[in-house]
Amino acid sequence: MQKTLYVINPNSSQAVTAGIAAAMAPLSRPEGPRIECVTLADGPPGVQTQHDVDRAALSVHRFAQEHRGEAAGFVVACFSDPGLHMLREMKGVPSFGISECAALTALTLGQRFGVIAILQGSIARHWRTWGAMGIAQRVAGEAAIGRTVSELSDQAATLAAMVDAGKRLRDENGADVLVMGCAGMAPFRAPLQEATGLPVVEPTQAAVSMALGRIQLGW
Amino acid sequence: MQKTLYVINPNSSQAVTAGIAAAMAPLSRPEGPRIECVTLADGPPGVQTQHDVDRAALSVHRFAQEHRGEAAGFVVACFSDPGLHMLREMKGVPSFGISECAALTALTLGQRFGVIAILQGSIARHWRTWGAMGIAQRVAGEAAIGRTVSELSDQAATLAAMVDAGKRLRDENGADVLVMGCAGMAPFRAPLQEATGLPVVEPTQAAVSMALGRIQLGW
Amino acid sequence: MQKTLYVINPNSSQAVTAGIAAAMAPLSRPEGPRIECVTLADGPPGVQTQHDVDRAALSVHRFAQEHRGEAAGFVVACFSDPGLHMLREMKGVPSFGISECAALTALTLGQRFGVIAILQGSIARHWRTWGAMGIAQRVAGEAAIGRTVSELSDQAATLAAMVDAGKRLRDENGADVLVMGCAGMAPFRAPLQEATGLPVVEPTQAAVSMALGRIQLGW
Amino acid sequence: MQKTLYVINPNSSQAVTAGIAAAMAPLSRPEGPRIECVTLADGPPGVQTQHDVDRAALSVHRFAQEHRGEAAGFVVACFSDPGLHMLREMKGVPSFGISECAALTALTLGQRFGVIAILQGSIARHWRTWGAMGIAQRVAGEAAIGRTVSELSDQAATLAAMVDAGKRLRDENGADVLVMGCAGMAPFRAPLQEATGLPVVEPTQAAVSMALGRIQLGW
Amino acid sequence: MQKTLYVINPNSSQAVTAGIAAAMAPLSRPEGPRIECVTLADGPPGVQTQHDVDRAALSVHRFAQEHRGEAAGFVVACFSDPGLHMLREMKGVPSFGISECAALTALTLGQRFGVIAILQGSIARHWRTWGAMGIAQRVAGEAAIGRTVSELSDQAATLAAMVDAGKRLRDENGADVLVMGCAGMAPFRAPLQEATGLPVVEPTQAAVSMALGRIQLGW
Amino acid sequence: MQKTLYVINPNSSQAVTAGIAAAMAPLSRPEGPRIECVTLADGPPGVQTQHDVDRAALSVHRFAQEHRGEAAGFVVACFSDPGLHMLREMKGVPSFGISECAALTALTLGQRFGVIAILQGSIARHWRTWGAMGIAQRVAGEAAIGRTVSELSDQAATLAAMVDAGKRLRDENGADVLVMGCAGMAPFRAPLQEATGLPVVEPTQAAVSMALGRIQLGW
Repeated sequence: MQKTLYVINPNSSQAVTAGIAAAMAPLSRPEGPRIECVTLADGPPGVQTQHDVDRAALSVHRFAQEHRGEAAGFVVACFSDPGLHMLREMKGVPSFGISECAALTALTLGQRFGVIAILQGSIARHWRTWGAMGIAQRVAGEAAIGRTVSELSDQAATLAAMVDAGKRLRDENGADVLVMGCAGMAPFRAPLQEATGLPVVEPTQAAVSMALGRIQLGW
Repeated sequence: MQKTLYVINPNSSQAVTAGIAAAMAPLSRPEGPRIECVTLADGPPGVQTQHDVDRAALSVHRFAQEHRGEAAGFVVACFSDPGLHMLREMKGVPSFGISECAALTALTLGQRFGVIAILQGSIARHWRTWGAMGIAQRVAGEAAIGRTVSELSDQAATLAAMVDAGKRLRDENGADVLVMGCAGMAPFRAPLQEATGLPVVEPTQAAVSMALGRIQLGW
Repeated sequence: MQKTLYVINPNSSQAVTAGIAAAMAPLSRPEGPRIECVTLADGPPGVQTQHDVDRAALSVHRFAQEHRGEAAGFVVACFSDPGLHMLREMKGVPSFGISECAALTALTLGQRFGVIAILQGSIARHWRTWGAMGIAQRVAGEAAIGRTVSELSDQAATLAAMVDAGKRLRDENGADVLVMGCAGMAPFRAPLQEATGLPVVEPTQAAVSMALGRIQLGW
Repeated sequence: MQKTLYVINPNSSQAVTAGIAAAMAPLSRPEGPRIECVTLADGPPGVQTQHDVDRAALSVHRFAQEHRGEAAGFVVACFSDPGLHMLREMKGVPSFGISECAALTALTLGQRFGVIAILQGSIARHWRTWGAMGIAQRVAGEAAIGRTVSELSDQAATLAAMVDAGKRLRDENGADVLVMGCAGMAPFRAPLQEATGLPVVEPTQAAVSMALGRIQLGW
Repeated sequence: MQKTLYVINPNSSQAVTAGIAAAMAPLSRPEGPRIECVTLADGPPGVQTQHDVDRAALSVHRFAQEHRGEAAGFVVACFSDPGLHMLREMKGVPSFGISECAALTALTLGQRFGVIAILQGSIARHWRTWGAMGIAQRVAGEAAIGRTVSELSDQAATLAAMVDAGKRLRDENGADVLVMGCAGMAPFRAPLQEATGLPVVEPTQAAVSMALGRIQLGW
Repeated sequence: MQKTLYVINPNSSQAVTAGIAAAMAPLSRPEGPRIECVTLADGPPGVQTQHDVDRAALSVHRFAQEHRGEAAGFVVACFSDPGLHMLREMKGVPSFGISECAALTALTLGQRFGVIAILQGSIARHWRTWGAMGIAQRVAGEAAIGRTVSELSDQAATLAAMVDAGKRLRDENGADVLVMGCAGMAPFRAPLQEATGLPVVEPTQAAVSMALGRIQLGW
């Protein structure tokens, strides 16, 4: 039986999951594995605080435990990678976080990456991640667009804010590659790249692409 | 009313809590705050895996939420600091982790610290913490004594293993100060110091001492 | 006999010492130790150059040697920590520097700290300290208010300059916690915190608070 | 027309290329791209010195220029990544180096990786790469097996030397994941993993797997 | 016979070589070695891309091989140090790169250096060098003047652009020493220093000065 | 009038000064400056503790102030570089420390340097220097020979201890270049190099050589 790569959206927003699923289209392969994007019904509406992250971590882990048998792999589709290191304790199934994979991908596309964060309050958490990964020297900086979940639904304004943040990271921080610090916004990747002239990493695609390779290798 | 500094043992072992409480004796002050060491009944018997850590984090947070009103501060008394960054989102009550405070204290007692870990499997997690703290350059190394929870009850053998690990960190890794990577073993601090000739940091005392100072300052 | 924690102002300004002493009020404890803030009559009027620092170091050391018998501990109350590592060679009495302790405290209050320096010329010296401490990755930046000793006496203008520097560190460098890079200005801590919305570390209080804890532990 | 992912062995050894090609089997996909492993006839017999690396770089670049039209991507299959940054100046075709990709993969499989080098003389060059990548903090160490090209043909002895190096990296340097610092030795991956109990990264598979994902994304 | 220190301009511009040669005047010594500045006829007109760098590396190496017998030492006079690590494999003749030596010299003149680059596209390459050298923490930033080779011939405008970049590095990035990221512009050093108030490192003079010392030592 | 480069031995040992002076022979140049090695009569017999260092710093500074008029430059010939940053505040005369210059020289001779220290107790101080210099990543390690000043006079035994330390740094720490962490032992450089097969940096020669170059440049 074909196994499944689970892409876990740890917040309860079906819209975000749908956005992630749409971004998977170019990655599906006839020979599998199946890619299934799931919403965790018991997740918070959005992962914003550390409390959201840590609560989401357990939900993600619970889901993974329950689906371990049919899982080819797991991708945690939230830019704080909730539960990633717990999942890695499950032997035999590779697990990936979109933040980690986005950063690793950025390292191959430029020398110093800038991160477009949604909320100012997440930036310190991201820096802890870059520090734990030992790659802080490669981070040019972070800039937040500072929009709430409801404001994000105004797509034109959100994209404009992301372009503005990207240009500041490029011009003031010296970023030569950008990372979108959020899931579910893949359609903004191309226009952001166009507007800033820099390569842009969409983290869910980056992570699923790496996961598929590793599943194929059986590592 | 005098407020309370809660020292939270996130595992369910009353013996460990008792050990921590005994170590608090030199730190209690007539003018307060009260220091109360608590056991989280719903915690794991010991915090060993990342799953233990992340599960403990939520229990710690739940406890803190419930006791916020009477809390002068919180100390998370487990060397993986479960829940620390969640607690820090609660404004108005300072929170501390024994791992973070032990490291910061070590930075004032020597130039490169060695960590005596209980389990080999915790060392990678510790390195993530030192990386996130941006202090990895000050870490001489880690050495695990590799004893299970039940084996730890043989105190003489445990101390001997810690002395051995401490000497290796001193001689092979160049550590000039040692950190005990566990809670509840304060009585070993003096003999360990004696045997290795290096200053030794006991993490719960280090953390509570820093917490009391900050409570007094009202920061 | 109750021992004394000496807080040593290495410059000859009684006004600065008085300011430091005032900041100690919330930290004094009935059970001791006594906290005594001293002015070194042979110190420079202000510690500005490296020559001032190195000359002050010997005065600080001389004072400590002379008062070793009755000392519970020493705090060097100048942001360049003159003489700190000499004091640490005196076994049996713990010693602290306000710069080191301010930085360590900041590490528990935010992810990347900004330092408000008095003089532009001190910033390189501070960076050497952050480098020697191995924590440069956690420093968002430094900004100098550029006021001479006599100009500092205009308190309103000094505070305004500090607020301005703090806002630049927050907005341009991404600092999420601020460190006041000077002794004797504790009353500015609260308004600075208020104006910038960031936690602010006053270094003499941070250091004395840590010193008291360590004295209590006997480490 | 289906495009081709060129896996370029920059040395002139057909045997090495054959070894690399055999390792590609699990990675080929019906939907393409074609994976073609090529030997550069004008390359050195083995890439050992910096001169070998820099000379190989131009050969790799020349090959890539000539095959750009039909190329889906390029993988430089030598652990010194000769020519990688030149290839990245060709817009529209993604390029990867096995050293860089092996390291990035290792970052997801452990906290501190050890590298099994072939020659002692390559280790300084590797450290320059880890430094340029800004990930030196994640490197536990390197150990060379110290065997010449002709000695490598004794497979049993070579594997034994790699196991020995891997165990030293694990026990003395604290590595929790190993990277094979050479191409063409994929069959040793499983026994090395078995013997050391650590995950092992084979660099050509790691790189081709990442390349295929990126080609699929069109990044 | 007096040996020769070859200062190799790897681009084909005689004008640049003439500029370098003029800058050698204060460094020539009666007791030798002779300093000879050479143009590599087969070099690119200017070293701008990574391809230029890597191609130049082989030309530099070829020249060095041919002149090894009479060489007292080699200085690679291009800010990307093409071929430096190849030259270092030639035992018995010391080799230097102007980028490496400029950085090392800057480390003795200030705490955080800023680099004035010619082209934006070279900055990522420079950061790889600072990373490989393990000194990135000392780099305040880089700023490009963004002028093409032909535009550089307008000296007044070029100097004005360099002064502007230098001031930005000083005021926005906190640089307290500047490095000119190019060869052949020694006459700009003094006015740049004058205009910015910071010490300025001219890289060819820095490198030749270090090379002469090492030749004298016989190291 | 020809100016003088003062090489200041901050301890009171004439024998050490004589050793330094002997090492200057290959560096003297007919065209000047004169090189004069001086003993500070008021210095400690040997610089061992931080107190020695800080006390020596003021003596060094006093000497430099008094000889500023005829000075072409100053080299502080003690591996703790006492007073270096004070001297650098004297404008118009370049100053160098043997520790800083030895490290910078080592960076051009290998990728990771090992330091042979005299006393175990100096190693922490050295690490503070490498940290302040931002080059700790390039330090493979330090090893002390652990001989007192009087024991150092047994030259054969001292050299044997240095060879032993050098081999440990090479084999256990991966050093590919060695730095002698002391002044006055230049004759040991060649045999140490011979015995270990690694390039060896003698710090006073390294520093004077750099100083002469900078004096010639007028920087």
